[in-house]
Amino acid sequence: MKELSKLMEYRESIKVVDATLRDGGLVNNFYFTDEFVSDLYKTNVRAGVDYMEFGYKASKEMFDVDAFGKWKFCNDEDIRAVVGENNSDLKVAVMADVGRCDYKQDILPKEESPIDLIRVATYLNQMPTAIDMIEDAVKKGYETSCNIMAISNGQEGDIKVALDMLGKSPVDVIYIVDSYGALYPEQIARITDLYMEFASKYGKKLGMHAHNNQQLAFANTIEACGDGVDYLDATYSGMGRGAGNCYMESLIGFLRNPKYNIYPVVQFIDKHMNKLREEGVVWGYDLQYLMTGLLNQHPRSAIAFTQDGRKDYAEFYKELVILD
Amino acid sequence: MKELSKLMEYRESIKVVDATLRDGGLVNNFYFTDEFVSDLYKTNVRAGVDYMEFGYKASKEMFDVDAFGKWKFCNDEDIRAVVGENNSDLKVAVMADVGRCDYKQDILPKEESPIDLIRVATYLNQMPTAIDMIEDAVKKGYETSCNIMAISNGQEGDIKVALDMLGKSPVDVIYIVDSYGALYPEQIARITDLYMEFASKYGKKLGMHAHNNQQLAFANTIEACGDGVDYLDATYSGMGRGAGNCYMESLIGFLRNPKYNIYPVVQFIDKHMNKLREEGVVWGYDLQYLMTGLLNQHPRSAIAFTQDGRKDYAEFYKELVILD
Repeated sequence: MKELSKLMEYRESIKVVDATLRDGGLVNNFYFTDEFVSDLYKTNVRAGVDYMEFGYKASKEMFDVDAFGKWKFCNDEDIRAVVGENNSDLKVAVMADVGRCDYKQDILPKEESPIDLIRVATYLNQMPTAIDMIEDAVKKGYETSCNIMAISNGQEGDIKVALDMLGKSPVDVIYIVDSYGALYPEQIARITDLYMEFASKYGKKLGMHAHNNQQLAFANTIEACGDGVDYLDATYSGMGRGAGNCYMESLIGFLRNPKYNIYPVVQFIDKHMNKLREEGVVWGYDLQYLMTGLLNQHPRSAIAFTQDGRKDYAEFYKELVILD
Repeated sequence: MKELSKLMEYRESIKVVDATLRDGGLVNNFYFTDEFVSDLYKTNVRAGVDYMEFGYKASKEMFDVDAFGKWKFCNDEDIRAVVGENNSDLKVAVMADVGRCDYKQDILPKEESPIDLIRVATYLNQMPTAIDMIEDAVKKGYETSCNIMAISNGQEGDIKVALDMLGKSPVDVIYIVDSYGALYPEQIARITDLYMEFASKYGKKLGMHAHNNQQLAFANTIEACGDGVDYLDATYSGMGRGAGNCYMESLIGFLRNPKYNIYPVVQFIDKHMNKLREEGVVWGYDLQYLMTGLLNQHPRSAIAFTQDGRKDYAEFYKELVILD
């Protein structure tokens, strides 16, 4: 049991990372209005959010630039149009997926770019490329983090090898990622313990990226926080793929550092998030996501169920367990 | 940190309590169709649920019987019409509120009644009446439990006195109740520790009744469960007052005892719960409930905000903190 004082104090080293445009972009193909993005930036600055992830640095050879909003690609000039010289404490982040990013050409030297942090996302079997991307970004002058995805389906032995590789790499932050929303808080505690072994040995920070399939994204995030994880991902109203993510409003309400302010967060949601939903953008907890989470499966079948407007939960459950 | 085995095993002493008709009844004035109630009973039996709470034993002198559905009053013959001789492992529960129940006349001797468990709900300042109700119910032959409500606003000293009174009473189960959805898992762990002191000393069981204002109802319920709490309240699709309760489907999916089955739960939701929502019954997490939870306030203002169809979250937040 955590000692009495934990919820009354705060830890200076905690960083809040807004992933709304990136994970949220997965549900609207990154078609956010310029007003939305500009307001989000200003809100994050006022709310004390530490990092704002603008989207992906996706390969323009693999993805049609006309089929997605600009935040799928995060051209430096598009970011610059929002942040200007970014005279604020907020740092700018983008995500680069292993195998879906032409990082050598598309990520420019830091001194030419408004970006501060390159977040590399990888599966366990892609670790060598992830390390190459991290080294490339560090050489160019960026902070770096690495998300190892889908660990709830990974072997602990493989995860240890990956953590050791990252430990020896120049990466700054290693993320615990519950891609399938399959993990319970007590599993997060155990996983944090494992990650912390390597983080302590190699002097790395840890991060947490949760999904809300079992309505545990916030609970798992604060569990990790209480266990010593410093970088906490959240999105406004939990907007993100499938069941979505940890809610920014819950996280900012939870944290005790006086630099965080919930009122601008509430104002932003008031102005923008209901509107998105009314326009037909769909995300968030529903029974089909609980099922794929419980079964530790990729949410793609639940996303298809949602997109098809299906409500026949019992039939869907049978499909999942019969194909399991 | 809990040891490795916790999620692979199960504890025989855990009991799942379905509170859908009772806490859910608060959002539709207890107007459930007979088919809904009959299907819910059959579903609970098939799903392995241990107790089904049918509603309140509300005073017919205080409440107009024509202004509420029958589960506000839970006449024994209405329960009997659903359960017959109740030839199942499911036990029947009702709630009796201190100050809102004519318990001496309305609760009949157990041998004449289909009810197994009388759940007494009380505020801290009403403990002597709660004890009288417990003694009355025990004398009539019932199992009893006691919910001490609104403890997140109570003084620890008063809570200890209440726990000691309950310890010395013949009550079987003492409930931890997060009426305002204000508590975080680490607070639940501390509160469980306090309640467990008295439960161990006096040989009582503990229960958990959570609200979902911060999307922590399920997380808090499994935190309590991991800390040794045996009686776990849940409702289908989390139906309950304001932000609702712990979702039955999440809880049944989490528990490992083979007597619990999620498929009938999914079938019931498929058939009934979306229909309720389509008919305009509103419950569940929304930003206004996060706010009252964060501020540790009764949800009545957030319920009014919801009923008025308001969406001006920022204005509502100002109202809350200005009146705070």
